[in-house]
Amino acid sequence: MTAPGPLNPAIAVTPRPPVMEARRWLQGVAFPAERPLINLSQAAPAEPPPEPLRRAMAEAVLNRADAHLYGPVLGRPELREAVADAWSRAYAGAIRPEEVAITQGCNQAFCAAVQTLAAAGDEVILPAPWYFNHKMWLDMQGIRAVPLRCGRGMLPDPAEAARLVTDRSRAVVLVTPNNPAGAEYPAGLLRAFLDLARSRGLALIVDETYRDFDSRPGAPHDLFADPDWGDTLIHLYSFSKAYRLTGHRVGALIASPARMVQVEKFLDTVAICASQIGQIGAGWGLAHLQDWLAGERAEVLARRAAMARGMSALPDWRLEGCGAYFAWVRHPFDLPAPELARRLVAEAGVLLLPGTMFMPGGDAEAARHVRIAFANAGAASIAALIERLRGFRP
Amino acid sequence: MTAPGPLNPAIAVTPRPPVMEARRWLQGVAFPAERPLINLSQAAPAEPPPEPLRRAMAEAVLNRADAHLYGPVLGRPELREAVADAWSRAYAGAIRPEEVAITQGCNQAFCAAVQTLAAAGDEVILPAPWYFNHKMWLDMQGIRAVPLRCGRGMLPDPAEAARLVTDRSRAVVLVTPNNPAGAEYPAGLLRAFLDLARSRGLALIVDETYRDFDSRPGAPHDLFADPDWGDTLIHLYSFSKAYRLTGHRVGALIASPARMVQVEKFLDTVAICASQIGQIGAGWGLAHLQDWLAGERAEVLARRAAMARGMSALPDWRLEGCGAYFAWVRHPFDLPAPELARRLVAEAGVLLLPGTMFMPGGDAEAARHVRIAFANAGAASIAALIERLRGFRP
Repeated sequence: MTAPGPLNPAIAVTPRPPVMEARRWLQGVAFPAERPLINLSQAAPAEPPPEPLRRAMAEAVLNRADAHLYGPVLGRPELREAVADAWSRAYAGAIRPEEVAITQGCNQAFCAAVQTLAAAGDEVILPAPWYFNHKMWLDMQGIRAVPLRCGRGMLPDPAEAARLVTDRSRAVVLVTPNNPAGAEYPAGLLRAFLDLARSRGLALIVDETYRDFDSRPGAPHDLFADPDWGDTLIHLYSFSKAYRLTGHRVGALIASPARMVQVEKFLDTVAICASQIGQIGAGWGLAHLQDWLAGERAEVLARRAAMARGMSALPDWRLEGCGAYFAWVRHPFDLPAPELARRLVAEAGVLLLPGTMFMPGGDAEAARHVRIAFANAGAASIAALIERLRGFRP
Repeated sequence: MTAPGPLNPAIAVTPRPPVMEARRWLQGVAFPAERPLINLSQAAPAEPPPEPLRRAMAEAVLNRADAHLYGPVLGRPELREAVADAWSRAYAGAIRPEEVAITQGCNQAFCAAVQTLAAAGDEVILPAPWYFNHKMWLDMQGIRAVPLRCGRGMLPDPAEAARLVTDRSRAVVLVTPNNPAGAEYPAGLLRAFLDLARSRGLALIVDETYRDFDSRPGAPHDLFADPDWGDTLIHLYSFSKAYRLTGHRVGALIASPARMVQVEKFLDTVAICASQIGQIGAGWGLAHLQDWLAGERAEVLARRAAMARGMSALPDWRLEGCGAYFAWVRHPFDLPAPELARRLVAEAGVLLLPGTMFMPGGDAEAARHVRIAFANAGAASIAALIERLRGFRP
């Protein structure tokens, strides 16, 4: 291997992508036919979008020039309008199309939001456990991720967050329903964080990638009903999970028009525009697949219930959070989670991610936890998982 | 408008996207039917991809689950292999699939390359005039773009570059054929820059977005024939122009495996993966459209020749560079280029970009130049442009 040449120290210390890392653990391991691998490392749709959506997209690919050519940096106008309308109704708030940007996936929406807010040396408060790509972006930008440890119910505490604010703080990031901890944040908690952020001059980034799978009926919070939401709130969303469009990379960012001027600079430079055919698909899904999506949600909620029931049959394991696509679980072994995870691959045919991938380095609690991404696992797989965990002896 | 909240000063001082800015100049201007707008602000395919490519993509959308789902961070293996093969042949070099990453467009490839190299406070040497999105990314990252003024033939001088190197320098960026100056850099010049970069421990980023429209037969340089290219060279490419896939956002980055470890972190965080259907389309184009592409190239070269002939009929204007999709022209008026550009919209129905969008602020030469993106303009439009410029009196 040749010398690598100049290296940005901030990216050098950024950990490698956990999902890729975990996939490497599978190399050289044989899974017998009677005990196939149960892969719970990543939850994402495994089936293509429903056939009517595929047909609508194929029709656009064949017949519409604009499906192939550059579109506006901030997204196709009709999709921005559809999001503004749907969100205004869903959240009983007022969101205008010019407050919506379409991004190449929700990860990019997060990167765009942070880029407008913070520079190297600044701080962003991140509940721990965190979503690893959020932490990676902060790391490679030289922004300090200040961990806010979740407490009971895997919820972050606004009073504790207030104690972490310094003059370098720029934002608080919440993910609800949460990846990796599965918690659905109460509306009042989100309101308390908005109040805190506003009072301290911070932005509040709320990533609602999994909102379509929230177990609660109605709006999950009332932040958009605040006429001044734009001074503090940045909302992120993904079309990937709801409509099985992960491979098309379509997300959304909602922010004030003033911030959108900055978001446009970032997206023009990193993206130019999001995939046009992905945007056409997302718009079609939003318009035509709400009943279908209700069924998808019911299925994910059924798996969540199966996961919770299953874990309750393992008295030594403790289910600390369960929602969205994820369960956050405390394991009973005197074994660091990374070692447990690798042994579960070889000895139980189960791939899950160790808590250390979601927590500050050296954290003792991180080593006692694992994330189980259950949303791809049917009832039989969840039952098999529980049996294999029950049988595992380190 | 509500208060914007926290603002990263580096993005606040980054200029807004020039193409968007120029589009705003059109607002409220009426273009009579006998003198329609000639838009030379951006060159990009205006027609959809050829029908067989659209059919191949539509077929994948309808029938292939993997066209819709997450793919590997660094790109679909078959596309990485196809690029490695095609490039190894075209450049008479040895490029392996693991040295190829597929990105969400070539802009993102540039961002990824820079992210692996440099942090805030570092320096990157950028020939001026530059491609504005390169400058914008450096600006918003807090990296200083050190301008290297192009000389005769709009070529940068390696000896001059050597004098700009400091202990904060991390890379030199070359774009060939050049946007905005149209120059095709000689192979020997690229070799001299590689030698300079290597001897000073810098990376050399070579953006070859327009390589398919280079007027020269054969390989435009021999850098990949150097067995140690990976210690210094990072090559960037775009599938957008060649196959009319701008709206799908597919680019490529070629670098050493050591650097690819860092590139993967960036792409995982900003992109997760490039559009799968875009990658399928790019791969199909690479395999099946080389004869068609040769015709596209011939057409662009014919327009380039028409542009050069036309400008030679305007003795007061000076064509300083002409190639790829662009002409770089010195205008004859005692009028700053931004003012000239806005008056050309209103008084001549011509939209082009002022040199100030590609040069350091306050540069006197920048104000004497404009970029004409001629690749979308047929012979009649180029003829009309020349007549309108001839008739314009400030």
